[in-house]
Amino acid sequence: MRHRKKRLSKEDFVQGVLAGNKTVLGRAITLVESDLVEDQHLSREVLQEILPYSGNSIRLGITGVPGVGKSTFIESLGQHITEKGKKLAVLTIDPSSQRSKGSILGDKTRMETLSHHPLAFIRPSASGSSLGGVNNHTRESVLLCEAAGYEIIFIETVGVGQSETTVHGMVDFFLLLMLAGAGDELQGIKKGIMEMADALVITKSDGNNFKMAKRAKAEYKSALHLFPPSPTGWFPPVLTCSALESTGIQEIWEVVEKYKKDMKAKGYFDSKRQQQQLFWMHENIRELLESRFYQHPIVSKRLGEVENEVGAGKKEAFTAAQELLQAFEEDGFSQKK
Amino acid sequence: MRHRKKRLSKEDFVQGVLAGNKTVLGRAITLVESDLVEDQHLSREVLQEILPYSGNSIRLGITGVPGVGKSTFIESLGQHITEKGKKLAVLTIDPSSQRSKGSILGDKTRMETLSHHPLAFIRPSASGSSLGGVNNHTRESVLLCEAAGYEIIFIETVGVGQSETTVHGMVDFFLLLMLAGAGDELQGIKKGIMEMADALVITKSDGNNFKMAKRAKAEYKSALHLFPPSPTGWFPPVLTCSALESTGIQEIWEVVEKYKKDMKAKGYFDSKRQQQQLFWMHENIRELLESRFYQHPIVSKRLGEVENEVGAGKKEAFTAAQELLQAFEEDGFSQKK
Repeated sequence: MRHRKKRLSKEDFVQGVLAGNKTVLGRAITLVESDLVEDQHLSREVLQEILPYSGNSIRLGITGVPGVGKSTFIESLGQHITEKGKKLAVLTIDPSSQRSKGSILGDKTRMETLSHHPLAFIRPSASGSSLGGVNNHTRESVLLCEAAGYEIIFIETVGVGQSETTVHGMVDFFLLLMLAGAGDELQGIKKGIMEMADALVITKSDGNNFKMAKRAKAEYKSALHLFPPSPTGWFPPVLTCSALESTGIQEIWEVVEKYKKDMKAKGYFDSKRQQQQLFWMHENIRELLESRFYQHPIVSKRLGEVENEVGAGKKEAFTAAQELLQAFEEDGFSQKK
Repeated sequence: MRHRKKRLSKEDFVQGVLAGNKTVLGRAITLVESDLVEDQHLSREVLQEILPYSGNSIRLGITGVPGVGKSTFIESLGQHITEKGKKLAVLTIDPSSQRSKGSILGDKTRMETLSHHPLAFIRPSASGSSLGGVNNHTRESVLLCEAAGYEIIFIETVGVGQSETTVHGMVDFFLLLMLAGAGDELQGIKKGIMEMADALVITKSDGNNFKMAKRAKAEYKSALHLFPPSPTGWFPPVLTCSALESTGIQEIWEVVEKYKKDMKAKGYFDSKRQQQQLFWMHENIRELLESRFYQHPIVSKRLGEVENEVGAGKKEAFTAAQELLQAFEEDGFSQKK
């Protein structure tokens, strides 16, 4: 794969990003998402350079099942934020979709107004695979956006999969959008996700839905009361909003700002970020080690057959693991004792 | 560390275990729990030999917060099972405690009656550290117990930590004991644990507690209804029991046997075990790789300082991970491309 555009130097990237140049920022994100070895080297350098200028933001995870109205919600909240003259970056993750002009256009059009606002930057994250994966790339894209002066970062996920846990590991505040439906309120949402939420928002609280939303709000409140409180002392509020009647948005933003203020005061805000950094370092170490292992010819050659033996109960799991590791070591993982 | 007792050979272990000799079984478990390299080699051989005789059991995870009455419950259910002439092995995990004569005696006395029953075998798992860790050792202990003819295996955990997820990954049926308390019912229990439960049992449903237990039962039922159904079609029932008035125990056991019957019929029982085997193989691979890495002199020498840099935001997490891995590779993790 060749770059059609002129390849930017480290300086081009760093200066462009720090100057808040959207085009360069976009290309910098493409760089960190790239699997090409040359790109990876360059992206490490760029990230290390911009790192001192990153971090000065509030990172919001926004999730909810399809149909809950994430884009509309982000449009409304995004406009509320940009009207205050603040710079907002929106990163969307869709694990199911590969990067494609289509999905990018798709996301742009999904947030029509916001995407044209000078203070807003919208970027769909590619669903990558390689070292660090899209999740790590997303985390690095956040750093780039912050270095480009974006004070508020949204990370949007679909809210039905593993990705939430990962996003929760890279944001300050995790917002769960819920739909007031008849019957089971949590359908589709894994219980674990509720546990991570710093706030629940019931969308489409208007017209005929209004009553239902109020009832859902009460149900969630009592459901949350069944759960143990957070050590930070923060109790996740349940809110309602309507993009249609543009109600509730301001209240939601006030909650986010209150959270930041309280957690900063208590020191949880910074310590949480520190822990997230360390978590990611060890996570990346694990991924690097495993990719070395599983991409090794000997391993990839034997793995399938070993899995069959283990699955069929012919070989003990740990024994199989040891044997594979030994073959791997003998072929170039020699350890000095 | 020297063995005071005569060291058993592979044949001694295999024959003793298959003969159902409790003393040998106990020593075999000590063997798989041992961190000594020589013991580990022997234990791999023993496990591989007995593997064909393992698996023919139902594996029960039993958990609940301290004070919920796990031991008393296990006594009652255990007696119900042994009275049916079935062999029961109880493995208890206490992540907090190191193996010690004390804790072993402690657990023995905790289940006075059961521990003296000829058909029962009670064994506290040591809280180990090394490769595979106590969790993997526990899983291997299960195989040994099965090879020794135990048809029902209990794995007891404290129900407040990580261990539950691990235990859930090695059992067929996960039983969550709950206490009917005033106010927040889930205090101390992480929400994730409820999600794993195949059945909820409210203990001490007697005397003054009876009404409260009934109310708690209703609350849990509605709480569970908020959650999405399992793909297996199994809906976790909420039951009550009293060890004091010995009520509810038979009903609980009927639920377990119904679960086994249904899941066997649907094929979920076996496929779940297969997935668990594969999960453990990859889990063990990960642990082996990480222990190689973190125990490496170069890594252990640099890690602390790197963690400080990353925590302080001076170095990017992925960059730090790469640097550590490179140092590790250059010092003996050379990979053939």
